[in-house]
Amino acid sequence: MQDFVFQNATKVIFGKDTEQMAGQESILYGKKLLLHFGGGSIKESGLYDRVVQSVKDQGIEIVELGGVQPNPRVSLVREGIALCREHNIGFILAVGGGSVIDSAKAIAAGVNYEGDVWDFFTGKSAVEECLPIGVVLTIPAAGSETSGGTVITAEDGWYKRAVGHETMRPKFAILNPELTYTLSSYQTACGITDMMAHILERYFTNVKHVELTDRLCEATLKTIINNAQTVLAEPENYDARAEIMWAGTVAHNDWLSTGRIGDWGSHDIEHEISGIYDIAHGAGLAIVFPAWMKYVYKHDIKRFAQFAHRVWDIEVDVNNLEKTALAGIEKTKQFFSSIGMPVSLAEAEIKDDRIDEMARKGTERGPLGNFVKLHEEDVRQILHMAK
Amino acid sequence: MQDFVFQNATKVIFGKDTEQMAGQESILYGKKLLLHFGGGSIKESGLYDRVVQSVKDQGIEIVELGGVQPNPRVSLVREGIALCREHNIGFILAVGGGSVIDSAKAIAAGVNYEGDVWDFFTGKSAVEECLPIGVVLTIPAAGSETSGGTVITAEDGWYKRAVGHETMRPKFAILNPELTYTLSSYQTACGITDMMAHILERYFTNVKHVELTDRLCEATLKTIINNAQTVLAEPENYDARAEIMWAGTVAHNDWLSTGRIGDWGSHDIEHEISGIYDIAHGAGLAIVFPAWMKYVYKHDIKRFAQFAHRVWDIEVDVNNLEKTALAGIEKTKQFFSSIGMPVSLAEAEIKDDRIDEMARKGTERGPLGNFVKLHEEDVRQILHMAK
Repeated sequence: MQDFVFQNATKVIFGKDTEQMAGQESILYGKKLLLHFGGGSIKESGLYDRVVQSVKDQGIEIVELGGVQPNPRVSLVREGIALCREHNIGFILAVGGGSVIDSAKAIAAGVNYEGDVWDFFTGKSAVEECLPIGVVLTIPAAGSETSGGTVITAEDGWYKRAVGHETMRPKFAILNPELTYTLSSYQTACGITDMMAHILERYFTNVKHVELTDRLCEATLKTIINNAQTVLAEPENYDARAEIMWAGTVAHNDWLSTGRIGDWGSHDIEHEISGIYDIAHGAGLAIVFPAWMKYVYKHDIKRFAQFAHRVWDIEVDVNNLEKTALAGIEKTKQFFSSIGMPVSLAEAEIKDDRIDEMARKGTERGPLGNFVKLHEEDVRQILHMAK
Repeated sequence: MQDFVFQNATKVIFGKDTEQMAGQESILYGKKLLLHFGGGSIKESGLYDRVVQSVKDQGIEIVELGGVQPNPRVSLVREGIALCREHNIGFILAVGGGSVIDSAKAIAAGVNYEGDVWDFFTGKSAVEECLPIGVVLTIPAAGSETSGGTVITAEDGWYKRAVGHETMRPKFAILNPELTYTLSSYQTACGITDMMAHILERYFTNVKHVELTDRLCEATLKTIINNAQTVLAEPENYDARAEIMWAGTVAHNDWLSTGRIGDWGSHDIEHEISGIYDIAHGAGLAIVFPAWMKYVYKHDIKRFAQFAHRVWDIEVDVNNLEKTALAGIEKTKQFFSSIGMPVSLAEAEIKDDRIDEMARKGTERGPLGNFVKLHEEDVRQILHMAK
């Protein structure tokens, strides 16, 4: 086990009707807030009205900024920063999924920074402080509701980059599984893939003696897998939606990574795909992860065999661990496919003509991943395996 | 799943030599602290000197209060409260195991309370605020290092009572597995039993659809079980000590109880035993838990069968779930015995002549437990089964 420091102070408020607590939690951070959201879905569902009412009941003044897109753009982040400065806003309430929360975090980091916010994402500058933010979550997927990270896309060159800082963790996260009933099958499946990928990135580590967190990872993966078909078949099954929603947070709130070093190569490769093609992050991960697994599994066949056995209940062939390992990878790919995800670039209608560009851009700041260090040629090969 | 609010903001600093960070973490809470500890073991091991040096390096003034005993006494808590008031102390650094931390929490709760601190434990008054406390942990067992609870014993009548409050959670907890190398086999086994009991109290619930937390509980139990014989056979095995130490925190930091209602009847029964006989809490739990399980298992045979299968790898007899359930209970008892714990009152040299008194005292504030509500007669029968 690695030495570690762990702290995650986000207050999670989980259950039915909890969005009505948005106001009483927000008032702790001031009398004025930026309400940040995406498209019209929260207005259609009535969620917007309920949150606004809850906030207004506390006498809080609202400045609005909607329009966050999937793969949130730095241009809207800049708009948010300007709004916060203009109205002297000290708190941001994000109502939506990972894109909205990530956009809110980037705004929060940029308000008190003199330069351009994209500096944080190029590495030109480091985040030092953020405005406090709160979350009403509508899409369980990104885990951004309690994480200290954000991923933003710059339209200029379609770079998609991640930044993390402890002060980015939301002060509170409101999770009502009922709010996820209206998600489409595709959105639901993308979320399931994303949360599984967050665990897989943590699971494939070179750190030895990580039994507790191995088992916690496996427990969370099994729960997601066991509830996936249920939420797809019965979108209004509260119990299954609740398991998936809480698992999505647990997948990325750092409980599962204590004492480990994660990989994150597949996430970085995926960012190159969705940065250019604007596909859903979860769909991109379903394409990349099986190819990545096949490319790297020989680095630690035992770990992949353990994964196959404990997560997918595949019997261990003690005389042929490689066979067991490969069966686990195949099962992972089949699972993503079974929930409606593309598992190749072709299935996502992406041609192979920009693979070289993605491999180059993805590695221009250095090799990707930790389990196996991936250089430009490695990324190119993985993307070709994912064709 | 139950609706829940979860927040645990304790900063965990885990790894080798981390006690040297005690000073830099403490200075955030002021220039004067109460250093609270137990007997001479931390002086013999050199830990006392290292912590004091780290604190003095930050220019922090130290007022000392040692002498905390297992089953910490309210008389020493009162002494600590008087010391804090006399020296105008605003921060307590607890160096030790659960007893020291619990004692520190009770002092922290009492300093700014006008009445007698025991009022909190009788229910006469409720905790509203606490001084901040920090922890350097030496015995992984109680989980008190990140919990919001404390258990104190009043010598007058030998009542052992628990109190909880969010503000009791330590601000930081320093966990260095090396500090546990010098624990005796008996202390180590008591700790293992205590942390397993914390998970079992959470596991046996009537709340339906708690798959994620069921699996997280099972993962943590399996890890403890897998590493128990190793730490007993090789006390200086860092990797196994680290697994046990972190599992001890995870068992009681409330990750595993999100969305559940725990039982806690066995803990309450044990408090009656160790309140009178002053045996180690872990040893008392090893006596009570198997008897409790046998007394209540028919309430939910399926849950006990799942426990047997997933934690103890017992094959499920689908035609006889009761047999599977009973095998799991027997395995639990055998395990406690295998690590040197007493599994009956007789093995702890406790006669059965005060069972009636324990049953009466234990239930005088109402029935115990949630999985099954236990009245005086139930507690009496469980204690007789544990003879």
